[in-house]
Amino acid sequence: MNIHQLIQELREPADTKIVLVVADGLGGLPLEPGGKTELETAATPNLDAVARDGVCGLSVPVLPGITPGSGPGHLGLFGYDPLEYRIGRGILEALGINFSVGPKDVAIRGNFCTLDAAGKITDRRAGRPSNEKNAAAVAKLRTIKVPGVELFVEPVREHRFVVVVRGDDLGDKVNDTDPQATGVPPLKAEGSDPASRRTADAVNQFAAQAVQVLKDQGPVSGVTLRGFARLPKIATFEQVYGLKAAAIAVYPMYKGLARLVGMDILDPGGTLKGQVETLKKVWADHDFFFLHYKYSDSTGEDGNFPAKVQMIEKLDAVIPDIRALGPDVLIVTGDHSTPSKLKSHSWHPVPTVLLADSCRTDGVEEFGESACLRGGLGQFQAQHLMLLAMAHAGRLGKYGA
Amino acid sequence: MNIHQLIQELREPADTKIVLVVADGLGGLPLEPGGKTELETAATPNLDAVARDGVCGLSVPVLPGITPGSGPGHLGLFGYDPLEYRIGRGILEALGINFSVGPKDVAIRGNFCTLDAAGKITDRRAGRPSNEKNAAAVAKLRTIKVPGVELFVEPVREHRFVVVVRGDDLGDKVNDTDPQATGVPPLKAEGSDPASRRTADAVNQFAAQAVQVLKDQGPVSGVTLRGFARLPKIATFEQVYGLKAAAIAVYPMYKGLARLVGMDILDPGGTLKGQVETLKKVWADHDFFFLHYKYSDSTGEDGNFPAKVQMIEKLDAVIPDIRALGPDVLIVTGDHSTPSKLKSHSWHPVPTVLLADSCRTDGVEEFGESACLRGGLGQFQAQHLMLLAMAHAGRLGKYGA
Repeated sequence: MNIHQLIQELREPADTKIVLVVADGLGGLPLEPGGKTELETAATPNLDAVARDGVCGLSVPVLPGITPGSGPGHLGLFGYDPLEYRIGRGILEALGINFSVGPKDVAIRGNFCTLDAAGKITDRRAGRPSNEKNAAAVAKLRTIKVPGVELFVEPVREHRFVVVVRGDDLGDKVNDTDPQATGVPPLKAEGSDPASRRTADAVNQFAAQAVQVLKDQGPVSGVTLRGFARLPKIATFEQVYGLKAAAIAVYPMYKGLARLVGMDILDPGGTLKGQVETLKKVWADHDFFFLHYKYSDSTGEDGNFPAKVQMIEKLDAVIPDIRALGPDVLIVTGDHSTPSKLKSHSWHPVPTVLLADSCRTDGVEEFGESACLRGGLGQFQAQHLMLLAMAHAGRLGKYGA
Repeated sequence: MNIHQLIQELREPADTKIVLVVADGLGGLPLEPGGKTELETAATPNLDAVARDGVCGLSVPVLPGITPGSGPGHLGLFGYDPLEYRIGRGILEALGINFSVGPKDVAIRGNFCTLDAAGKITDRRAGRPSNEKNAAAVAKLRTIKVPGVELFVEPVREHRFVVVVRGDDLGDKVNDTDPQATGVPPLKAEGSDPASRRTADAVNQFAAQAVQVLKDQGPVSGVTLRGFARLPKIATFEQVYGLKAAAIAVYPMYKGLARLVGMDILDPGGTLKGQVETLKKVWADHDFFFLHYKYSDSTGEDGNFPAKVQMIEKLDAVIPDIRALGPDVLIVTGDHSTPSKLKSHSWHPVPTVLLADSCRTDGVEEFGESACLRGGLGQFQAQHLMLLAMAHAGRLGKYGA
């Protein structure tokens, strides 16, 4: 039996609230063997208190050794098997800018680039144009027509935009046209099946016309395309869990992931304080709150150990405000590890704490990788976390007589 | 490959004995965060000795967060995937009273109720009749004939009885007719497919005639029916493991579960002492012994923490008698947790100890939830426990060359 079917069968209404705080890339590594990780180095009195009062463990995002991107990392935390549901980058990007992707759409990430007279790339980011220049160039791209499909072009920021190709029987098995190098022209798109060849034909025409319409846009003179993706068929949070869910995220991709599973996307502004204020404001209106915190990941990706420590301490500082709301279940975890030592996402299990009245406490007194290893949740699959959240929220009935 | 196929392929005969002691609802919760559970509070010198000499862990009955009923809880311990095999309440009840359910049967739990002149329920349990009154009313029900099916009615106790409808192509997708309320009439049975509609027709006729034949039975004046269920197709213990198994249980449902997997059902009387005496008596005749102890669950369901502690201590007292028999493998576990704090079954992992000469001991010195968290079995799926039992009993050969 499929876990979502099981949940749909067992779930019960309850007047309870679940808060899932995702500190992106939370898990880390010590810089020296036997040393402390970023989380262990950070002074986190409030997270430590949650660990003491709750139950801890380590979340395995996909499988041991598998490093997830943000998509699989979050889908797992939302209780969707990240090996079953695969979400293309184009879809994430489109959802993140509030584009309503439909079943006939292929969504694609676009980058403006600079081409020389021979059509070779001299700057893969077109000098990182301002958002205004981006908008002007997007306006030009919107004049492009390709027979047989509808095209939508939306600005993202700097050199980035989104193209959506809408039409009948379009596939998404198309290569990225970004050669990841300068001195060469963008690659030709090719589809690996008939439906994807239709998409490839359309975007090749689009890219060729783009060079024409961008003639007067200075360094913004060409486009590369990547992350071709169709919308996966995925049940919403409401359908699976019966939860009215709100996403309180700053960055587009995380809004996009939340929108994909049908959460209401709130606009908290750009600060953690704004996110917590938003949480308070909408507290009465939802059952589930996904609060995404980006900076534990971005500092890790930068390889900046002390900055990651500091960003974790900033998150710690708002924990009392969240606890003060009295969530029935509070979870703090990450979608994956991002050790500053590795300057990238990693496969290492992610420190996780769950706080609820029905917790079996475990003697863990500190929120950190080593301490969580001794926690009552053990090492668990991320996709099982929502089962625990539902159970502790009194929202899952008994299975079988 | 299916685990049962694997076991059938690898199993080897051996002259070894396995004892599985199931303390129903064994796992608990502390009343206060950081406090002790019922098992940790209980003085259990003998179980502690088993923990010291054996290997401990925590069993996850179905999945994290999933609270099992007795059926899935026991099937898991017996090594049957509780998400694959689903056993209806009617089947359990029928098996528990020794009724030989067959492939053409739909088994149903019946409750006597009291109906007023308008046919509305005034007491859902008909004043909890004595077993004698129950038997008299069942005798009346046995006079009912419904064309096209054979009917069997068996007393259980107080207001409870079992009906088995036997016939061709009968389905079990029929709603409970107990409205779970007074002041309303029993619900009409409805089937959700053609086969189940045949069953619903038959039981609606049965229920209507019941009102007639019960006219002179005082408060026992009507019936409600629930838990419609057919026998699942399930391989026996002998077929899967090659084990000649005996069940030493007091309560009907657990006998029923054991009968379902083909165990011999012994009658130990009503006491734990009687169960252990029975174990001694049949020691030579079987390879596997399932000893079920109910009172760690019932006291938990009552929310009576000290009573659960006391009942666990009673179980502890018989452990030396069981060890004295020299089982090659002794397991003590539970089918699920029943924290008295929650007054119900729960999803929390269940303390488990396995004792055998081939154990890798783990430094656990006490049988309790926190100590088991540090045990050598880790947190494991209940359905894998029988694999360990078979291995430690020298009954599983090598997989692959």
